[in-house]
Amino acid sequence: MKKSVIVGQSGGPTAVINASLYGVVKEALERESSFDKVYGMINGIEGFLNGRIMDMKPLEQSGELELIRTTPGSYLGSCRYKLPEDLKDPVYPKLFEKFDEYGIGFFFYIGGNDSMDTVSKLSRYAESIGSEVRFIGIPKTIDNDLVHTDHTPGYGSAAKYVASTVREIGVDASVYDNKKSVTIVEIMGRHAGWLTAAGVLARKYEGDNPVLIYLPETAFDTDRFIQDVEKALEKTPNLVVCISEGINDGKGAFICELASDVGVDTFGHKMLTGSGKYLENLVKERLGVKVRSIELNVNQRCSSSMLSAVDLTEAAESGAYGVGAALAGETGKMVSFRRRPGKEYGLDYAAEDVTLICNKEKTVPLEWITRDGADIGQEFIDYALPLIQGEVEVPSENGLPLFAYRR
Amino acid sequence: MKKSVIVGQSGGPTAVINASLYGVVKEALERESSFDKVYGMINGIEGFLNGRIMDMKPLEQSGELELIRTTPGSYLGSCRYKLPEDLKDPVYPKLFEKFDEYGIGFFFYIGGNDSMDTVSKLSRYAESIGSEVRFIGIPKTIDNDLVHTDHTPGYGSAAKYVASTVREIGVDASVYDNKKSVTIVEIMGRHAGWLTAAGVLARKYEGDNPVLIYLPETAFDTDRFIQDVEKALEKTPNLVVCISEGINDGKGAFICELASDVGVDTFGHKMLTGSGKYLENLVKERLGVKVRSIELNVNQRCSSSMLSAVDLTEAAESGAYGVGAALAGETGKMVSFRRRPGKEYGLDYAAEDVTLICNKEKTVPLEWITRDGADIGQEFIDYALPLIQGEVEVPSENGLPLFAYRR
Repeated sequence: MKKSVIVGQSGGPTAVINASLYGVVKEALERESSFDKVYGMINGIEGFLNGRIMDMKPLEQSGELELIRTTPGSYLGSCRYKLPEDLKDPVYPKLFEKFDEYGIGFFFYIGGNDSMDTVSKLSRYAESIGSEVRFIGIPKTIDNDLVHTDHTPGYGSAAKYVASTVREIGVDASVYDNKKSVTIVEIMGRHAGWLTAAGVLARKYEGDNPVLIYLPETAFDTDRFIQDVEKALEKTPNLVVCISEGINDGKGAFICELASDVGVDTFGHKMLTGSGKYLENLVKERLGVKVRSIELNVNQRCSSSMLSAVDLTEAAESGAYGVGAALAGETGKMVSFRRRPGKEYGLDYAAEDVTLICNKEKTVPLEWITRDGADIGQEFIDYALPLIQGEVEVPSENGLPLFAYRR
Repeated sequence: MKKSVIVGQSGGPTAVINASLYGVVKEALERESSFDKVYGMINGIEGFLNGRIMDMKPLEQSGELELIRTTPGSYLGSCRYKLPEDLKDPVYPKLFEKFDEYGIGFFFYIGGNDSMDTVSKLSRYAESIGSEVRFIGIPKTIDNDLVHTDHTPGYGSAAKYVASTVREIGVDASVYDNKKSVTIVEIMGRHAGWLTAAGVLARKYEGDNPVLIYLPETAFDTDRFIQDVEKALEKTPNLVVCISEGINDGKGAFICELASDVGVDTFGHKMLTGSGKYLENLVKERLGVKVRSIELNVNQRCSSSMLSAVDLTEAAESGAYGVGAALAGETGKMVSFRRRPGKEYGLDYAAEDVTLICNKEKTVPLEWITRDGADIGQEFIDYALPLIQGEVEVPSENGLPLFAYRR
C-alpha cells in the first residue's frame, strides 16, 4: 500500500521557507504514483499532535501553490515545540500512532537547529521500534548557522535585504554631508554574525559605508569601539556602523545587557534596550556627535521585497531533493548544500546525517573578520555575493505584494 | 543674454526627490535654447551661499541622470537652513549677488514646508528689489502635509513601503497562531497621520491586520487603547496595531513623552523611548500578553524597494512642469497636484501661490478616521490606493540596487 507524505515548518519565518514547502509539495505531487496523499501539518509537530493537518493537493489545483512559493513566513504556521530528550517519553508512541492513522511514510520538516533536532529524535525513535517512516530535514534559517552545509535557504534573501537596506541607510545618512553623524544599524544574529557581515556588501567603493562592522564572534570592547568611531569620523563624517544584536564582551555578557542593568521605564520595569540603543547613548555621551540607532527588526526575515533569486531557487530545489532522497531510502538526514569548487558559483545537494547537524552552531570564521574585529574581509564577500544574486518578481495586486494565506 | 537654471533639494530625503531633480534637469536640458547653464546646488541654499554648485549637463551625457531618477535620498545633498524672516537681513543681497554672479534666472527648490518658505521669501525679496529671477517650488514630503495640493511626491512610495511592510509584519506575526500576541508598528508623521493611515492598505480582507490604527489627528487615550486591544485580541489572536509616532493626548503632549518622564539609561540620561515602546510596555503591564513594538524608521523615506510607479512619474513630471511654468513667467509658485474628478485616477499640474502653502499643515480629515479614532475609513482608501500603483524596476548590480552618488 502506498504511503502518504507529510510536511511541516518550524522555528522563525524566513522569506523563502515557503519556497521549500513549495518544493516538497510540488515534487511529491509530481511523483504522485509513489505516494498516497500529500499532507501539510499546521503549526508543526505541535499541531500534528493535535491532528491539525491539511491536504495539499487542492492548493496546486487552485494555483495557490504557485503563490505560496513567493510568500514570506510559514504558510502552514510554525511552532517552537521541542521533543523530549528521553525517547521513552509517551509522546513518541503517540506520534507514531498518528503516523499510522494517517498512513504517513515520509516526514519532511523545514527548519533550523531545533527542527533538525526533531528530525534526529524521530528518526532515532523510528529505528528503535523498527518503524519504516522516513524523516528528512530541509534547512532553513536566516542565521546561516547550520553545520555541514555551505549555507542555508533564507540566508541569501535576508543578506540581500540587509545589504540593500544598509546601502539605503547610507544614502539617507549622507544627505547632510557637512556635519558629523553616526548611524548604528542593529542586525539580527545572537551568536553568529553571518547576517551582520552582509552589511559589507552595501559598500560601493573602498572606504564607503558601512565603515565599521562588528560581529558576535569577536569580543566587543566599548572603549575600542569609541576609538574606532572617532577615527572613522575623520574620513567619513556621515558614518554608518553595523552591529550584530549579539555583540558581547567575549566573556558571556551581551552588550545590550550592560544597558538593562540600569534603565528603568515608567512602570519600574528594566528597559530591555538593544545593543544599538546602548551604543547610541554611549557615542552621545563620549563623543557628543549626532547619533541614531536603527533596528532592522523582523523585516530582515519576513520581507519579500528583496528576495534573492538564487536563494528562492535553492530553497525550492532543496525541498524537491529531500523528496527524492526519501524515496531513495534515506532517513535521519538533512538536505545539505555543497558548493562546487572554482570561481563560477555552482551547488550540489546531498543528504547529511541530521544528528551531526542539530544543536550545533556554525559561526563566521575568525580569519574572515578583519581590522581587529571592526570589519569583514574579501573571503566573506566572495562567499556571500553569489547568494544574493537575481531579482524575483513577486505577484502584486492593487499596488501591493500578493501573498497566500490559509483561510 | 540667456539666463541659467539652478536647482536644489532641501529637507529630509524621500524615495523620489531625485526623480523631481531628474524632471527639472531633463526638461531644462531639453529646452536648452531657453537657458544658458543648468546648475545644481550642493546642500541646498546653505551650500549655494558658499558657492557649492555643479554643472548638471555632464550627468546627462554620462547616463548618470537616468540612474539619479531611481536613486533615493537627495543626490545634491540637503540642508535645513531657514532664511531669516526679516527681508532686510544681509543674507538676501548676498544671495542675489550670487545669482548675478552665476547668471541665474530660474531657481527651483525641491522640498517640503520649510523649502516652500524659502521660495516664498526669495520671491518676495526679488519683487521688492525688482529682480527678474523666478522662483519655483517643487513639492516633496513623505508626510503628505502640504496644503493646496491633492498630495505630494514621496508620499505614494512611502505609503506603499508602509503598507507592504505592515502586510509582511502581519505574516510574521501570524506564524504562531495559537497564542495571543500584539505587534505595535510605529510609523513616521509627527502631526499628520497620512503615512500611518496607509497601514490600512495592508488589509487583505475585512477584519485582517492591522485591526487598529491610531493617527495624531485624534486624542489618544491609553485606557481606551488597552480596551481596544483587549477586545481586538478576542477575534484576532495575532494582533497588529499601527500607530503614528506623533500620537498625543489631544492637549499637546505626545504619548512618547509620557515614557521619557521616567526612563533613565545607564548614563543617567532620560530614555527617549518612542510611542511604540511606551505602548509595548503598557500592554505588557496591563494585559500580560506577548507584545513587541517595531519602529519602521528611516527606510520609510529612503527605500527604493517599494517605489510606486505613479509616485515616481508624478515626481519627475512635477519637476518638468515647474520648468515650463517658470519659462511661462511664473514665480513665487509651487507646482501643485489637482486630481481630476471621477472614478478613474487622473492628475493635472498647476502653479499655486507658494506663500499660501508654506508654514501650513494639512492633516487627515477627521471624517476619514473611524471607530472612535481606532481605524481608517473607505474615503482614505479611495484617496490613497491610486498613489501606490505600479512597480518600478530599479537598476541593479551584483544583486543590489544600483544608486547614483556624487563623486
